[in-house]
Amino acid sequence: MESSIPIHLECPRTRQKRVPDDYEPPYPSFVARFRPGVTQVAMAYFGVQYQGAETEGARRALADIAQAFAAGQAPGHWDRARYVDEAGYTNVISIAYWDRPAVFDAWFGAQGASWASGARKYQGCGTFTEVVRPAVERYETLFSANDRAEGVAVLADSMSGMVQEHAYWGGARDRIPASQTSDMAPSGAPRVVTEGLHRRVVPHENICLIRSGQDWGDTPPEERRMYLEEVEPILRQGMEFLRDQGVSIGCFANRYMRVVDAQGGDTEKSFGMSWWKSLAALERWAESHPTHVAIFGAAMKYLSTLGPAAKLKLYHEVTVAAADEQYFEYFNCHPQTGMLRVPSSPA
Amino acid sequence: MESSIPIHLECPRTRQKRVPDDYEPPYPSFVARFRPGVTQVAMAYFGVQYQGAETEGARRALADIAQAFAAGQAPGHWDRARYVDEAGYTNVISIAYWDRPAVFDAWFGAQGASWASGARKYQGCGTFTEVVRPAVERYETLFSANDRAEGVAVLADSMSGMVQEHAYWGGARDRIPASQTSDMAPSGAPRVVTEGLHRRVVPHENICLIRSGQDWGDTPPEERRMYLEEVEPILRQGMEFLRDQGVSIGCFANRYMRVVDAQGGDTEKSFGMSWWKSLAALERWAESHPTHVAIFGAAMKYLSTLGPAAKLKLYHEVTVAAADEQYFEYFNCHPQTGMLRVPSSPA
Repeated sequence: MESSIPIHLECPRTRQKRVPDDYEPPYPSFVARFRPGVTQVAMAYFGVQYQGAETEGARRALADIAQAFAAGQAPGHWDRARYVDEAGYTNVISIAYWDRPAVFDAWFGAQGASWASGARKYQGCGTFTEVVRPAVERYETLFSANDRAEGVAVLADSMSGMVQEHAYWGGARDRIPASQTSDMAPSGAPRVVTEGLHRRVVPHENICLIRSGQDWGDTPPEERRMYLEEVEPILRQGMEFLRDQGVSIGCFANRYMRVVDAQGGDTEKSFGMSWWKSLAALERWAESHPTHVAIFGAAMKYLSTLGPAAKLKLYHEVTVAAADEQYFEYFNCHPQTGMLRVPSSPA
Repeated sequence: MESSIPIHLECPRTRQKRVPDDYEPPYPSFVARFRPGVTQVAMAYFGVQYQGAETEGARRALADIAQAFAAGQAPGHWDRARYVDEAGYTNVISIAYWDRPAVFDAWFGAQGASWASGARKYQGCGTFTEVVRPAVERYETLFSANDRAEGVAVLADSMSGMVQEHAYWGGARDRIPASQTSDMAPSGAPRVVTEGLHRRVVPHENICLIRSGQDWGDTPPEERRMYLEEVEPILRQGMEFLRDQGVSIGCFANRYMRVVDAQGGDTEKSFGMSWWKSLAALERWAESHPTHVAIFGAAMKYLSTLGPAAKLKLYHEVTVAAADEQYFEYFNCHPQTGMLRVPSSPA
């Protein structure tokens, strides 16, 4: 068993992890291992938003961003997902990952910056850009199986062996290297600045982003039925609670998304992604809100029924980003889009 | 809102509590406040064990211990509870609390020491003594309502106002004053020493004792039905898991008991009491074992359905005792009784 914090990011602690050194988790989990040369990554969400059937503008936007990802300074990995939001708009988000911030910066300057600035016009749709560029001390990953990377982990060198810091509340915090010396408390509050159709968000310190996904592509029929009938509906309820009422508990926005393939068709993968005031707010929801307690209970029943035979794959990535590691920009989007739900600055 | 750690027990921290300073629990809870002069308490469990109908010896033993509690150096509070154990024996335990260790010592020397030493003989039953005498830094209490004390809290001066450190996993640890500077890790392992019918347990450092109770006496009919039909059976399953399989996860013994009245009749109060290798082992079961996740889910559903109108009262007390604060003695008890389930010393 190994620590989820890689040796080269270990430092003298001023804060303790939550479990004793002899803690042994009841089942295996794994984390992505990045080569020591990786000091910062970029996680960039490029959204298209439209009402009703896909517009010509949306189609063009999706083609453009895919083409941009194939240009110089390309991301190491990207995928695409879709959902219908609380206002009834379809949102398609292309999510790209880089492991060298200078390369991301060059790409963004050449290809990404115009996406939601208003410089590039797409008729009949809105566009938005949500980026975090965390130092490697500021994020963690977790996988139920070590044979399929998702998200930022696709850029990693390898998967770890079994790690110690999981299967208890507070495990995500303990896996983030910065937790060795920092409480990662938020300060300030995000504010929206609007100029016509264009909106930016002035970030606050230590926003938290989670992408938490499931892949039922390998499940045999009976396991698939259990997942789709006994777990997914409860997961969906929790995701809808966060989407509709999350602000009251520090969740600025939540999207429960289906990953789509190159032709835009549904795959058998989904994930929730949400923006939180702080890691602490996410922790509180996860460990004690009735909606997540229900999800956890359903998942636990499922996994304890199936045991190691379970073919469902689970993963997540959690980031706590400094204010200067965040970038939010929205063009022609409805006012409930993503981080736009935070209060506006006085005009 | 106030801290559950009283001001006179606050000290410079080397360890952090798990929630930020601005954390606000989602519902109120309260702790017992002892006057600053109380530096140590005694929690003493005097058990009688018999098979089948109550024996004459058991009847006499129960009368004797009640009489002893009424003598000089009397406990500040005591109550009595009963259950049938995994071996089919009825166990009746008289539980007494003192808030001055010198008074307890005097009482114990005069009245208590002979209970399970073999010096006093009760035909047709076994007797056992399980005592912890924790410094006030080493235990915590928690109450869902501030109008009815139970257990050690009956000795307290008063109930606190609403406290901050609850409604999250790790709250019990954060309420124990010693957690400010200690991980309260266990060291060593308890061992049983047997001489004929008489057995003692050589303690280890930082055993954990929890007494966690419920009182449905005030519930109106529909709430009572919900508790008895939807919560209690799930609680019972968890208690039986700990009783029968707890050793595998660090629970040495668990008793799910019904409080009885002076005539030995059932009251509408019950509690689980269990001995754990460590507070960490208790934490892990509570927060992630399927049996407690089920209990937590059922309780959460119940309480969120009823809201503040709920009349069910919940409380617990959790102690982490040093080796020299423990005393275990068994006479003529079957080998699965309480702490006797830990391994024996070589003869």
